[in-house]
Amino acid sequence: MATPRSRARAIMGRVTTTELPASVLDALRALPDDLVISDPDLVAGYVRDQSRFTEAGAPLAVLAPRRTEEVAACLAACHEAGVPVVTRGAGSGLSGGANAVGGGVVLSLHRMDRILEVDPVERLAVVQPGVVTGELRAAAAEQGLLYPPDPGSVGFCSIGGNVATNAGGMCCVKYGVTRDFVEALEVVLADGRVMRTGTRTVKGVAGYDLTGLFVGSEGTLGVVTEVTVRLVPAARPPMTLVASFDELAAAGAAVAGVVASGLAPSAVEILDRTTLRAVDATARMGLGEAAAMLLVQADSEDADGLLAEVESICLAAGAADVGRSDDPEESAMLMEARRLALPALEGLGDWLLDDVCVPRARVVDLITAVEAVAAETGLTIGVFGHAGDGNLHPTVIFDQHDGASRAAALGAFDRITEATLALGGTITGEHGVGRLKAGWLTRELDPVNAEVQRALRRTLDPRGILNPGVVL
Amino acid sequence: MATPRSRARAIMGRVTTTELPASVLDALRALPDDLVISDPDLVAGYVRDQSRFTEAGAPLAVLAPRRTEEVAACLAACHEAGVPVVTRGAGSGLSGGANAVGGGVVLSLHRMDRILEVDPVERLAVVQPGVVTGELRAAAAEQGLLYPPDPGSVGFCSIGGNVATNAGGMCCVKYGVTRDFVEALEVVLADGRVMRTGTRTVKGVAGYDLTGLFVGSEGTLGVVTEVTVRLVPAARPPMTLVASFDELAAAGAAVAGVVASGLAPSAVEILDRTTLRAVDATARMGLGEAAAMLLVQADSEDADGLLAEVESICLAAGAADVGRSDDPEESAMLMEARRLALPALEGLGDWLLDDVCVPRARVVDLITAVEAVAAETGLTIGVFGHAGDGNLHPTVIFDQHDGASRAAALGAFDRITEATLALGGTITGEHGVGRLKAGWLTRELDPVNAEVQRALRRTLDPRGILNPGVVL
Repeated sequence: MATPRSRARAIMGRVTTTELPASVLDALRALPDDLVISDPDLVAGYVRDQSRFTEAGAPLAVLAPRRTEEVAACLAACHEAGVPVVTRGAGSGLSGGANAVGGGVVLSLHRMDRILEVDPVERLAVVQPGVVTGELRAAAAEQGLLYPPDPGSVGFCSIGGNVATNAGGMCCVKYGVTRDFVEALEVVLADGRVMRTGTRTVKGVAGYDLTGLFVGSEGTLGVVTEVTVRLVPAARPPMTLVASFDELAAAGAAVAGVVASGLAPSAVEILDRTTLRAVDATARMGLGEAAAMLLVQADSEDADGLLAEVESICLAAGAADVGRSDDPEESAMLMEARRLALPALEGLGDWLLDDVCVPRARVVDLITAVEAVAAETGLTIGVFGHAGDGNLHPTVIFDQHDGASRAAALGAFDRITEATLALGGTITGEHGVGRLKAGWLTRELDPVNAEVQRALRRTLDPRGILNPGVVL
Repeated sequence: MATPRSRARAIMGRVTTTELPASVLDALRALPDDLVISDPDLVAGYVRDQSRFTEAGAPLAVLAPRRTEEVAACLAACHEAGVPVVTRGAGSGLSGGANAVGGGVVLSLHRMDRILEVDPVERLAVVQPGVVTGELRAAAAEQGLLYPPDPGSVGFCSIGGNVATNAGGMCCVKYGVTRDFVEALEVVLADGRVMRTGTRTVKGVAGYDLTGLFVGSEGTLGVVTEVTVRLVPAARPPMTLVASFDELAAAGAAVAGVVASGLAPSAVEILDRTTLRAVDATARMGLGEAAAMLLVQADSEDADGLLAEVESICLAAGAADVGRSDDPEESAMLMEARRLALPALEGLGDWLLDDVCVPRARVVDLITAVEAVAAETGLTIGVFGHAGDGNLHPTVIFDQHDGASRAAALGAFDRITEATLALGGTITGEHGVGRLKAGWLTRELDPVNAEVQRALRRTLDPRGILNPGVVL
């Protein structure tokens, strides 16, 4: 059996001097042996994220540093040699942002998984990027605090990946997205230089907001090696309301009513008819033939009164049925339909999950547009998501072994994205551009904005080694 | 009397071809005549902001465009000629960020003062940069909405200036700062290209956060010509609590207690002994010899219960006296001491207002450090500000006609800034770096961060025409 050093030599050996200068090989060899993952079976697990229809190449190696200095050494060596670097958290992404590039390396931060500090007085936590978001939330909860962002993958995604994509989730409607909670970063730049951004103070305007620039930059501007996040006081266990609607327009009116009310629910989720049918087929929840269902949660002191007002709004908008519960177990049961949305749609075939966001008043227009695409293509497309933010996940069901079905799915996906832009929306609300929508970004941005983005990227990564092909 | 055109020719004539190429003169002359302000008496009003101890040069002209295209034409011409451009809102800044540069032009946006849209469904407003912040707040209030940022200058500062400095105010402790409310921008770049950043959607991760990068960039990266801000539901008229403390440490314990409580007051302000004495001397409010006073406001549904909890926290921390009111008029009276803080200190002499921010638990440490500086220098230094954010405004009183006093004031200012950094704070919480603290920024930022900031600035403004001398 190969020793770590011989494995490292083997992998570096494959990276022959015809590809890499000897100085770079020396630099990579100088790293501890077990930093290099070269076992093909293991490497295979680092080649792509959970997206569909995105390209992934065969990486030369997976580098798994444990310290900032090791990340810096990896990047300095790759920068010198012009070797592409794809930084990877938990690989739970849905836009191909962590897919390996052929001839490059994958820099996996899964070993940098320590929670360094939770400060209940300043209400912040300092964590390494490989910390699972759910573990950060649990550590905060132990101190009576909450780290709000809760992407669907909260149980297995990493905070570093959340920072890279500016991840969202259900509580964004009340609390905001990842960027709203990142106060400071440690970043290793493309050439291996290390810098700190932001402050531990609540306010601060000393220089440009580099923290915000790196959040959502999808591994193209640098590698985040430490994250300081703001925490908020723990919320109460949520109370839940479920409203079903026979007409889609009525559900839309209810969403608009809730938004306009000024109430602060902690979740406003929607499931369309297709999704409800799929959930019903899976779990026989008796969801019947509703055109749409809204699930609204509240976690504030006045949750009861808040949901009573939401109930009135739903009924006034024409809800067919409204139920609510302040019992945590019953609330969890009511949220079950939402949790089952993707698994139930998965049961129907292969799926292509979209992530689009429209102005909140246009949620129904977007669902209507998706229904038209489904009717015209004959594809099943379920829509569910964060209605209170206008952020929906139309999910196209297809057969990936059937070329015509694949083409139809991609065509439907494009038409949904087009419809989103036509409604004044954005091509991605919380999943990121990745490789999946890199071609779409210049259709959303004006040409000058795109030029500026490219120029900033070149400034920070002049050799273009960081996640080539992602974003722009 | 000179016609506008002859005035324009006169000012352009002074910019002789030995300084500017003919093409630039032609470009500036092609702008409408009344865009150029050349009357020396009028120009004098555009030379500096309200800061002290900051340099200002004599501008060649003041340009006052009314439209984005005019801003673009001005910048394109200045870019070609390498003429420095200082962009100016209402001139209410306190860090010299809008001070003119000798041989440059001042680009004043005061004519771009229209509120273009208030959308109550999407809860956003679109405004030109010259809109006075208080007028935006009034327009939002007419729709039952609130634009939260409330800098002390809210009645006369402009939203463009607020964006440039990422301005704060009293409600930041609950609502956040300007950047938290800016969703999208129209920006004219240094070379005259126009771009849009951000979206009208609540969420969006399509590309880098250029919006956040421009907020707080103090006119060094581009000129903001349109701002889309997020609004929130209108709050209730605030209820107010006043607590006085015989020991500074007790006030600090109360602040820490309020922060740790998880309550969401809409203001947590502090006044130190020196400030209270000054206020008392001005208004005979019977503030006695308290070491510090806290003023806490709440604007939520449960304001009464919230302030009752704050009262308990203050008493447990050792408050000598606590009073509170739910009457708006009485609340305003209680807040009078805070409003009088700066005017009362002004009454003692010339003033140099600082803006520093420390972690919230270190507020008392900072006040103690300021007291030590005052004792050692013999200067009067009052401290007041946003205790709930750790953002304080130590205000040095001196005699600007006395060279020794000026030197002592500047020395005290430097020592306060040093003490702030030693406490883990930042050199500016909400006023910006400007010219006043440009020399301090590299003491706060690590060298790589400073290099990155410089590189980004060069990328966006390769000829260095935008606000030279400001920030870095």
